[in-house]
Amino acid sequence: MISTNSGRILHTFSSRVWNHQHRCLPVFSASCRCRHVRLASTDHGSRDGRNETNNTNTFLASALGATCVVGATLYWKLRHDKLQAAELDYEPGSIRPNLPTYSLADVSKHKTKDAGIWVTYKNGVYDITEYVTGHPGGSKILLAAGGSMEPYWNMYGVHKQSGILQIAEQYRIGNIVEKPAGSEGLSADNPYANDPPRSPILIPSSRAPFNAEPPALLLAENFLTPNDLFYIRNHLPVPDIDPRKYSLEVQGSQKTAVLDLSGLRKGFKKKSVAAVVMCAGNRRSEMVRIKSVKGLNWGAAAIGNANWAGATLNDVLKHSGIDLEGTEKKHLVFEGMDKGPEGSVYGASIPIEMARSLKDEIVIAYEMNGEPIPRDHGYPVRVIIPGIVGARQVKWLNKIYLSDEESECHWQRRDYKGFNSSIDWHNVDFDSSVAIMQLPVISAICDPPEGTELEEGSDEVTLRGYAWSGGGRGIVRVDVSADGGKTWQNAELKPNGQSPYRAWAWTLWEATIPIPEGKAGDVELVCKAVDVSYNVQPDSVEGIWNLRGVLSNAWHRIKVTVPPSSG
Amino acid sequence: MISTNSGRILHTFSSRVWNHQHRCLPVFSASCRCRHVRLASTDHGSRDGRNETNNTNTFLASALGATCVVGATLYWKLRHDKLQAAELDYEPGSIRPNLPTYSLADVSKHKTKDAGIWVTYKNGVYDITEYVTGHPGGSKILLAAGGSMEPYWNMYGVHKQSGILQIAEQYRIGNIVEKPAGSEGLSADNPYANDPPRSPILIPSSRAPFNAEPPALLLAENFLTPNDLFYIRNHLPVPDIDPRKYSLEVQGSQKTAVLDLSGLRKGFKKKSVAAVVMCAGNRRSEMVRIKSVKGLNWGAAAIGNANWAGATLNDVLKHSGIDLEGTEKKHLVFEGMDKGPEGSVYGASIPIEMARSLKDEIVIAYEMNGEPIPRDHGYPVRVIIPGIVGARQVKWLNKIYLSDEESECHWQRRDYKGFNSSIDWHNVDFDSSVAIMQLPVISAICDPPEGTELEEGSDEVTLRGYAWSGGGRGIVRVDVSADGGKTWQNAELKPNGQSPYRAWAWTLWEATIPIPEGKAGDVELVCKAVDVSYNVQPDSVEGIWNLRGVLSNAWHRIKVTVPPSSG
Repeated sequence: MISTNSGRILHTFSSRVWNHQHRCLPVFSASCRCRHVRLASTDHGSRDGRNETNNTNTFLASALGATCVVGATLYWKLRHDKLQAAELDYEPGSIRPNLPTYSLADVSKHKTKDAGIWVTYKNGVYDITEYVTGHPGGSKILLAAGGSMEPYWNMYGVHKQSGILQIAEQYRIGNIVEKPAGSEGLSADNPYANDPPRSPILIPSSRAPFNAEPPALLLAENFLTPNDLFYIRNHLPVPDIDPRKYSLEVQGSQKTAVLDLSGLRKGFKKKSVAAVVMCAGNRRSEMVRIKSVKGLNWGAAAIGNANWAGATLNDVLKHSGIDLEGTEKKHLVFEGMDKGPEGSVYGASIPIEMARSLKDEIVIAYEMNGEPIPRDHGYPVRVIIPGIVGARQVKWLNKIYLSDEESECHWQRRDYKGFNSSIDWHNVDFDSSVAIMQLPVISAICDPPEGTELEEGSDEVTLRGYAWSGGGRGIVRVDVSADGGKTWQNAELKPNGQSPYRAWAWTLWEATIPIPEGKAGDVELVCKAVDVSYNVQPDSVEGIWNLRGVLSNAWHRIKVTVPPSSG
Repeated sequence: MISTNSGRILHTFSSRVWNHQHRCLPVFSASCRCRHVRLASTDHGSRDGRNETNNTNTFLASALGATCVVGATLYWKLRHDKLQAAELDYEPGSIRPNLPTYSLADVSKHKTKDAGIWVTYKNGVYDITEYVTGHPGGSKILLAAGGSMEPYWNMYGVHKQSGILQIAEQYRIGNIVEKPAGSEGLSADNPYANDPPRSPILIPSSRAPFNAEPPALLLAENFLTPNDLFYIRNHLPVPDIDPRKYSLEVQGSQKTAVLDLSGLRKGFKKKSVAAVVMCAGNRRSEMVRIKSVKGLNWGAAAIGNANWAGATLNDVLKHSGIDLEGTEKKHLVFEGMDKGPEGSVYGASIPIEMARSLKDEIVIAYEMNGEPIPRDHGYPVRVIIPGIVGARQVKWLNKIYLSDEESECHWQRRDYKGFNSSIDWHNVDFDSSVAIMQLPVISAICDPPEGTELEEGSDEVTLRGYAWSGGGRGIVRVDVSADGGKTWQNAELKPNGQSPYRAWAWTLWEATIPIPEGKAGDVELVCKAVDVSYNVQPDSVEGIWNLRGVLSNAWHRIKVTVPPSSG
């Protein structure tokens, strides 16, 4: 079994694996509250290991309790007697002169079971192949395979207790002295030299401008995506804005209002909205497999769901003397402070009808998940327009005004539009299509990841993922299949607390489904969602392929493998 | 060539066909204004027949001018000399003692070129095979094949000039004395005995209750579907309501307002909205081909677009003291006057959020296309809720009230819901799904009809059809293909004059696309639409099959044939 969050798997850990394994096991976990409850119930199945299991559970319960807030967790499963035996006379992660030294390149070659699975912590190199090989349930640790565990440990800080670190040293095989490459290598005149530091958990698809997504596996863990895990989609260098000097210009027909950050925070009622921001190119990599496209090679994690807070558009416009109902202008334009080399700024606009109908939902936001918006996400202020593509939700917001015309920005007029699959760069006419606003219904399987090897003889598999639709259309059903789409089962939808007609947040889902009997080898897992307007995802990527690789919302298909049963 | 509304085809008529054909030719036409202009231009290509063509054009121009208002037209193409020769000494359609008598059953066997194509007018039987065989462009006349021309002539009354009727007699082969069967056969105690008369153009899928759709071929002719052509979906016998006694009860928390028809007409501002009404089961017949479903075997014409006029919901509720914004009730319920055998009435409800956001768009309607709503469509009053399924747009509206619960009507709770394709009658749980409200994006090819034989050597084909999406989402693109979906071309969208975010009406479209070179035999024509939220239609019927055969919005595929070129 791949998933770590079902009672059945934990039972396996307690009663079988745990007693045959004499080393401490690193593993990621999720859905802590659930797991905590289920752990207790697994005790009944582990007579011969009761003491160990109880101790383990006590540890887990404490670690998990502390990390439930952020959701996903990396922890060390401990055996009490082993822990006592493992006391060290050196700092975990410090250089050990009696061990060989490896390069980062050496470590990065060790990502698979065949090559061995290595990870690093500070100056330590660890071989965790034995654990991973024996326990497919620990798949999440593979996220760190061939690289450093630190980003995960920094994120879920509870694990750096010295006892746990000492245990980790039992897997120690060598030293590393190199530092990972970062943006510090950029010369001072490089426009991206002043970009902020980012979590190394993120997987970059481009470094300048910086664009990166988290491992999809971690997405379905949290209804609210942690800021450090939220995908980053920058078009230009990140502005470095002094909050004391920040101002937002709102141009009315009679006057131009200028609001500073303090004015935005204190002058208006604070409105919070849990809303998805998604890149139009999310899941583009599936289109690339059909035929090449222009664009970042996004997996299924160029999407996140956060709680955004700030002033409503309506309040800000009213304060600035702009009358959305009375105006004859056709578009509301937003401009950012991120500038291209020739000085032009990023901008976007929305149709006036959309501004009107969403005026109390659109947020001029200064908070993301209760914190100041991080620099990569628009510090200090961005606009959140729920239900539409990320590209219009201008970051580093500098100016708002009405116009007869759409934003003239490249990304409004010459990008982020849909075309049929017979249009390519030789015959495209961007004026013939409309700028993407509301997005169509989409879903994805986050867990298990593509290519996962399930446990030998698995007869079922637990899938978890997200589903979302633009325009506030709530998700009413997610169908999952373990036979490539021949038969379907409804997934369990986790309530998001929003009205189905104003559902700006995503819906997380989970399903445990049988694997077709006698099946060994590849299993194709599929999911597809239905929104409240009964829109469905299209069956194939071929039918929606487009030259920019946007709007990639076909049924999400991944392959996992079931080893043939040896019994 | 199949289509009759392109310049190229008319040119063919003028310069080639017309001169080789010594009989008068019946044919349907459409898009009159367009054709009128193009006709004039075809004169240049018909030197040897200029006189005839000009006379023909003069006649056509006059007939077409008179019928442009209604759109689709049946007319006789005339040859001037033939017309003069054809004067008769009897009434067209009267019994001719020297000709054989046929039964309706005899006539109904003559629908194909192989069997001969017969039609009737009054007591006359006509064999029009020669015309149809020689001229595939006349395909619309096949709608009347095996039956009476009268419904079409009654609809487009201009054709019953005595001259035209005299010409028709040249095709006369016999007499008919039977009357077509109608509902007059029902005994007085049959609950359907008092149903209204319907246009025989409609193709019934059930007679009690009466359900019928027009030939899809006629749908794309008119932005506003003529009342007589509008599909009928009745669940119960049609109430026979005396307008002087009609009343609408609107139950507020404090009082119940009772409005009569005159009060509705005179007491409120009249609001008009062009809006689609579509049955959830439109295009069900495509699902039936995969696996049987429960439901009427609708083709692609269980949809219509009409101009509805009446009082807004908001005005009626305000008048009745109902506060949509302030209420804590969750649903707005509508009840009709159509009763089941056990006395229960048809009803439906919509979520309160929907009532709020559409309060100025929902119409308590008493007019359909400028006329009192016909009995089959809810006379004297129905509710029009733009953007949602027809089933909630209660006809013969009797009562409106707020409720904590959805309508308890069978059709709200135990019907008109979506399920995945692995749910069938043995495992369905209607409570597990949500009542269909807003509909997903759909489109269909109306012209040419399935199975049409194109002209020998055709290298292109003209397609026409409709596209629409629920929730007011306008259509931004229709893709058409003549190679089964391998390559695509954009269709030309006819503007519907509505905002893309409040697009309640459909979008008619047209495209002329090349037939793959050297292609003979079956050609698969396909269309698919994209709405402003970039929702697309699913590729396959298999992926959306459901036990009730609703929401059938896969790519619309039809087969036509191209005879092998004899040259």
